[in-house]
Amino acid sequence: MNTKFVCTGFGEVYYKETETTRCIKCNEPVELEELNNGTIDYGKTDYSLSRYRSFYPWLNLDKEFTLGEGFTPLVPVEMPYGRIYIKNESINPTWSFKDRGTITGVLWASKINMKAIGTVSTGNMAASVAAYGAKAGMETVIFVKEEMPAEKLGPITVYGARVIKVKGDYGELYKKSIELGRREGIYFINSDSPFRVEGYKTIAFEIFEQLGNKVPDFVIVPVSAGGNIRGIEKGFRELKASGYTDKMPKFVAVQARGCNPIERGFLKGEMEIERVTKPDTIAHAIENPFPPSGNQTLRLIKRTGGTVISVDDSEILNSQGMLARRGLFVQTASAASETAAEKLINRGIIKPEDIVVCIATASGLKFTEALKYQKSRVESINLEELQDLTLD
Amino acid sequence: MNTKFVCTGFGEVYYKETETTRCIKCNEPVELEELNNGTIDYGKTDYSLSRYRSFYPWLNLDKEFTLGEGFTPLVPVEMPYGRIYIKNESINPTWSFKDRGTITGVLWASKINMKAIGTVSTGNMAASVAAYGAKAGMETVIFVKEEMPAEKLGPITVYGARVIKVKGDYGELYKKSIELGRREGIYFINSDSPFRVEGYKTIAFEIFEQLGNKVPDFVIVPVSAGGNIRGIEKGFRELKASGYTDKMPKFVAVQARGCNPIERGFLKGEMEIERVTKPDTIAHAIENPFPPSGNQTLRLIKRTGGTVISVDDSEILNSQGMLARRGLFVQTASAASETAAEKLINRGIIKPEDIVVCIATASGLKFTEALKYQKSRVESINLEELQDLTLD
Repeated sequence: MNTKFVCTGFGEVYYKETETTRCIKCNEPVELEELNNGTIDYGKTDYSLSRYRSFYPWLNLDKEFTLGEGFTPLVPVEMPYGRIYIKNESINPTWSFKDRGTITGVLWASKINMKAIGTVSTGNMAASVAAYGAKAGMETVIFVKEEMPAEKLGPITVYGARVIKVKGDYGELYKKSIELGRREGIYFINSDSPFRVEGYKTIAFEIFEQLGNKVPDFVIVPVSAGGNIRGIEKGFRELKASGYTDKMPKFVAVQARGCNPIERGFLKGEMEIERVTKPDTIAHAIENPFPPSGNQTLRLIKRTGGTVISVDDSEILNSQGMLARRGLFVQTASAASETAAEKLINRGIIKPEDIVVCIATASGLKFTEALKYQKSRVESINLEELQDLTLD
Repeated sequence: MNTKFVCTGFGEVYYKETETTRCIKCNEPVELEELNNGTIDYGKTDYSLSRYRSFYPWLNLDKEFTLGEGFTPLVPVEMPYGRIYIKNESINPTWSFKDRGTITGVLWASKINMKAIGTVSTGNMAASVAAYGAKAGMETVIFVKEEMPAEKLGPITVYGARVIKVKGDYGELYKKSIELGRREGIYFINSDSPFRVEGYKTIAFEIFEQLGNKVPDFVIVPVSAGGNIRGIEKGFRELKASGYTDKMPKFVAVQARGCNPIERGFLKGEMEIERVTKPDTIAHAIENPFPPSGNQTLRLIKRTGGTVISVDDSEILNSQGMLARRGLFVQTASAASETAAEKLINRGIIKPEDIVVCIATASGLKFTEALKYQKSRVESINLEELQDLTLD
């Protein structure tokens, strides 16, 4: 099948997947050609990808590779400044949004007869690729940073993947992994590889349906490499091209103040991100000093009339507590999207009547150390004292 | 509304909820009257309870209390002894099956105008009740054992509930909490309270639909208090009474060898459980020495032609690894259901052609300390060595 790839930079076209996933001329990431004939299969309710399969004509869904990813809840929460919607991606097979992109990546790897898959990751993506590699029965290689503590390794190694700690520059590792994959026949489903990005389109499709076939005014996404925001934006673009709506949401990329390469480019009015030399934030899942899809994130933000914003660690922790006290315990990086919503409403960029969707990317259980910063109400009593207890 | 409750022991009937949730005469748990006119609303795909709402005529679903519980995947996995299905309850808002029973409990509490809710729990149920109390905006009181370590408290306290550590007998605490609730107007959604049990019926409804409108031959459930197996069994009973099927599955209750009060009663051929004095197992979620719905579990096992089995900690850990190497990272207690499947197949009690569903009750992330017993494949290299790396 002649799959068509388009460079997100200047539109250069490729008719097979470039092994580097980037344009040979300008080094920007490529994406699959935009579809204009997708249809939602309302009869399909078993799992998300099957309902939206016509948006994936180049995938063969017959294989039993799914772990039941997707169909996550869109939860309305009432904040002091108004209602927002949380797209709770923690309710996925490995408890992060990554599973949506891993399933499409594994299906593609299987279709092109690769026997092994791999990824370079420090957390959510590592667990996700390891799990789907196990489900698919494919040899799986996971590269992680040398300093990863044993306790974080456990929920990755449990799936049986070969986990390799690498000493050296992490950005360089991303590049070298692709070379290794080419040589050894390992399909690397890295953070912004085209088939991973495709998987995130289902987030857009589900939001559209969950809002009663409506496109929200704003979609706020915590951004690391840029793969997730690219996939969600492409999903809405394809809904529009397929005639489901005339509207595109405005996209907001959220970063941590201590690691804001995309915001730096945005504030300078440039279309290029600026590398951060000493990243430092409690939101580890978005601690990426030089995002490979950073420039494309800037372009899609500009095209949709959105913005980029960064938030402090203290604000993130405050948001994590605010969301938990409304029933949602999300990872620090996820909570950053709520902080962004509040700030943009206060600044008048988001209007009170706007429909705002915040993407919560992963479960709070992934990084419980952050809980030491949260207030708690714990008392100790003897059983006999129970009879004197009163409701405050 | 005159809600009808029936004692699971000798059928005594009550026309309001007994505050103790147990029969005044024989002390066995009561349950809501069995329905014979439920209908699946195929048009409803937003969340599980809405699809099956006619099986809950005494609940008002209009309130925005849902966090998107239910609609969990039924994942086929190929084991050396054949195919089994894992009902993956880890993909729930607080990453355990408890959410299904908490939502029905909270909805009932709201309907009868209670202003506060509570529970007595050491883990999954505490987090679940705290989360739904937060979502519903109700004051929430959680009783835990005095010795609960701080790290386990974090994912419970984060929701803002009042958490009270109690020194003293845990079984006594269950009883006293009900007294406190009556006095202070706190609705305690404990492990086998009737409205919690009702919530678990949706597991049965979903399995039925996910198997293509078929009832499995065996449903294997890790059992602690007995609330979950009671709810699932009642769900299948109501499907049958409502004309969807003529068949009931056989139920298997799984316990840990180090805490097997229900198995002890079963092996003696008695209809009463036998208290375990020194419970000791790594499967903490089913470490209940005297299950309040233990006798009823024995009765439903006998009625459906099922069995009770206990498994060793080493077998549980082995099953946890086996499931993870097929893409599913579940809690130790959940893995016990796979061990049971293998044993019963080896003993000829389950036939190779039987359809077997194992209930995986919660996420492996809930108790990562157990991972120290799992094998892992971790290597360390320098970036330069990547060029010599080969696929095994």
